[in-house]
Amino acid sequence: MLSEFLLAEMNRLGAHGALPLHRRLYEALRRAMLDGKLGAGERLPSSRDLAQDLNLSRNTVVAAINQLSVEGYLASRVGSGTYVNDNVPRATPGRAAPRAAAPQAGRLSARGEALASRYCATELEVQPFTPGIADFSAFPVTLWQRLQNKHWRMTYPDMLDYNDSGGYAPLRRAVADYLRVFRSVHLEADQVVITTGTQQSLELCARLLADHGDTVWMEDPAYWGAVKAFMATGLALHPVPVDEQGISPASADHATPPRLIYLTPSHQYPTGAVMSLPRRHQLLATARAHGAWVLEDDYDSEYRFSGPPVSSLQGLDTDGRVLYMGTFSKVLYPGLKIGYLVVPKPLVAAFRQAHYDLNRPGQMPVQAALAEFIEMGHFTSALRRARQNYGERRQCLLEALRPVLGQAGQDPAITGAEQGLHLCLRLPPRVDDHALAQRIAQHGLTVRPLSAYCLARTDLRGLVIGYGYAPLAEIERCGPLLANAAREVV
Amino acid sequence: MLSEFLLAEMNRLGAHGALPLHRRLYEALRRAMLDGKLGAGERLPSSRDLAQDLNLSRNTVVAAINQLSVEGYLASRVGSGTYVNDNVPRATPGRAAPRAAAPQAGRLSARGEALASRYCATELEVQPFTPGIADFSAFPVTLWQRLQNKHWRMTYPDMLDYNDSGGYAPLRRAVADYLRVFRSVHLEADQVVITTGTQQSLELCARLLADHGDTVWMEDPAYWGAVKAFMATGLALHPVPVDEQGISPASADHATPPRLIYLTPSHQYPTGAVMSLPRRHQLLATARAHGAWVLEDDYDSEYRFSGPPVSSLQGLDTDGRVLYMGTFSKVLYPGLKIGYLVVPKPLVAAFRQAHYDLNRPGQMPVQAALAEFIEMGHFTSALRRARQNYGERRQCLLEALRPVLGQAGQDPAITGAEQGLHLCLRLPPRVDDHALAQRIAQHGLTVRPLSAYCLARTDLRGLVIGYGYAPLAEIERCGPLLANAAREVV
Repeated sequence: MLSEFLLAEMNRLGAHGALPLHRRLYEALRRAMLDGKLGAGERLPSSRDLAQDLNLSRNTVVAAINQLSVEGYLASRVGSGTYVNDNVPRATPGRAAPRAAAPQAGRLSARGEALASRYCATELEVQPFTPGIADFSAFPVTLWQRLQNKHWRMTYPDMLDYNDSGGYAPLRRAVADYLRVFRSVHLEADQVVITTGTQQSLELCARLLADHGDTVWMEDPAYWGAVKAFMATGLALHPVPVDEQGISPASADHATPPRLIYLTPSHQYPTGAVMSLPRRHQLLATARAHGAWVLEDDYDSEYRFSGPPVSSLQGLDTDGRVLYMGTFSKVLYPGLKIGYLVVPKPLVAAFRQAHYDLNRPGQMPVQAALAEFIEMGHFTSALRRARQNYGERRQCLLEALRPVLGQAGQDPAITGAEQGLHLCLRLPPRVDDHALAQRIAQHGLTVRPLSAYCLARTDLRGLVIGYGYAPLAEIERCGPLLANAAREVV
Repeated sequence: MLSEFLLAEMNRLGAHGALPLHRRLYEALRRAMLDGKLGAGERLPSSRDLAQDLNLSRNTVVAAINQLSVEGYLASRVGSGTYVNDNVPRATPGRAAPRAAAPQAGRLSARGEALASRYCATELEVQPFTPGIADFSAFPVTLWQRLQNKHWRMTYPDMLDYNDSGGYAPLRRAVADYLRVFRSVHLEADQVVITTGTQQSLELCARLLADHGDTVWMEDPAYWGAVKAFMATGLALHPVPVDEQGISPASADHATPPRLIYLTPSHQYPTGAVMSLPRRHQLLATARAHGAWVLEDDYDSEYRFSGPPVSSLQGLDTDGRVLYMGTFSKVLYPGLKIGYLVVPKPLVAAFRQAHYDLNRPGQMPVQAALAEFIEMGHFTSALRRARQNYGERRQCLLEALRPVLGQAGQDPAITGAEQGLHLCLRLPPRVDDHALAQRIAQHGLTVRPLSAYCLARTDLRGLVIGYGYAPLAEIERCGPLLANAAREVV
């Protein structure tokens, strides 16, 4: 009976052929629990039995069960199998409620309401074309484990403690060497502060360099994570439109002078615009005129596929007003939680002190393993493999989309495909890109409407499409589905 | 020549017999670099040669060199030894400058200036009696490595990703089971949010439950880390005095109604007061009357040595207004960076969502290893061993201090020795406890003046003394030094 329900659900979810099998089984099992087909406390059939009944490989079944266990739907008891947890929410009849209920109004502060409801990562459906997500399935887990082991064996008490020196010194040196050579960043190792990633880097900058209510100039459209970090630190967001050369402040913008300017100059998120050299010099002059700090988020500069290499804005700065940040999550894996922030020399002491007091940085054995991973050349070879890999996926997606594109200079057009793990398919302003993204979601594909990234402007329509996550075969299969859906609305 | 300098420095530092040898060598080497006796780029003698010249064990030399490497003074090059880094600051002649220069005024925001300079962790000299620090040298590194390996071997892609469900489900269950039994916390596993520790738990609460400028009632004297988290989130701190029954709001305090009340009820930090039952009920009624949230920080409840067991304030709350938090850093090791926050049910969805968006939680393989560490009973046996261990150190310290104590009810008196890893030696109000702590520092011992924890009050004097870090033998040796210094001023 359960198998029949699961098979029916999986068929329904597989109608368009896009969702991988383990994902379909995951959804079907979740539905079975939410609908009460699998009651709280009930024992799940063994993975072997499920695999047989559903005619699936055991790996597929185990992957689905693992995911449900991580999310708390299932619990394993040693020696007695896997059970449905007692706290699985029941869907109200007639309407599915796959996520927990919305927060009760009035219990949160106004800031809390905004943080918990605006610019949230939508349902974490990682499906083909979800932007912003890399494929970390190729991450060399065994090598990584070996390095971690080595550093755990060599560990001494100080490695288990918090760290107040801006991070493990050999890692700071390795990062500095990499950035100096590959990103033309001007720095010495002691300007590097190791953080848990870009969110922490951004918050540290916002707290130390701006006061509550100060203005931050944001690119419009903008990266959600930065919007969120600045909301959380009480800054006033002033959107400045982005064109094909990057951020483009008009004279009206100068009436709201910035304390901070947040930029993604190498590959604007999400449009993909590369900031031109004249625009870079202008921007630095503007920052100087306003006494503003510039935060350069170089989030995916590791992947450049065509066009001239773009070096960092920080490298052009003669004034010590650019703070540069990056992350290892796109090359290694997101849960690693290691990023870096390059701070002008006069700020180093204050950043180290406040970082220590506010964030109590730790995880030194992981930092040590990463330092060796970089020093021994594993990082550059992982990069090389990934670049090759993503390059093929990108090419495949570009070919799938080609039939949809308009005449030169006309929408639909592709922007931002030279670098990174996503591109932007620009659509004419009359298209409802939200509705289009929803229609595409029915095929089990996730793309994001460009208008969802806009802060103030209303003129942009398009799709933000990632090619980082799905393997080549899936892009080959699903690319045409995407192209068809887009063609229907143009 | 270098050996002579090092020997002379080590003798000087060892005059009072309190600093461990590796620490003396560390200081001597650092001094040699700052004074230019060891120049930038210069090669250090091998650890074997140093050990021979200085008549030290090789382990002692390696410990000192390791610490200097972590802090960035030294760099190892494979196959060619250890070198002084190029960026070691030179002391200005005549005056040592062991830390980087103070931040340049005016470059930071007002908030940044405050965060980088007020209530900072002082020089991280971890020496006998430093409060707030546990001894993690006994942490079972090999077992931990084995568990980590197991979970890395079992890892599947979702474990390498960010996590949006409040943490690894089996860990949330293990934490819930522990808190239910040992701390009488009323909860289900899905109310647990795994964080990177108390700082992150506090910031999440402050951001979601309070707006910029809202009032938080703080115990006076108070825990610095919390002060810092609330400064960073823009709250207005309203200090409320603590007496021997815990926080004690007077009628004047109600004129500044709180949005949040931050408490350490089981073992007030730093006085050690245990909040009495009537006071707990009063406080909950007060919170209800003001519509305030209560943040219960149960930071060291694992270590109770005498007196009746104290259960959590959260367990008395019938109103769903207490958020309970704790950390694993005092039982395992600080750099682990795993803590937990227990959230009332109606807030769970908002906390998970905002935690995901603001902090992008990861490190799932470590969470999995920790879950198994707890489930298999290693956590409780580590606790048992540690309790035994710390109990002996505590007893030894109490005995050393006994000769200093006044008549019953008179200062000097000890408070807060029933629980945790520190106690408070109360001194008469005429004593300059800052000067006393500095005098004690000359013996290579770190204690903190009680008055340094005070926010508004000026009546408290004393020493906050930790017995968590130093081994029993050191407490035996150094306890009398401490007692003598205290007796001299009374």
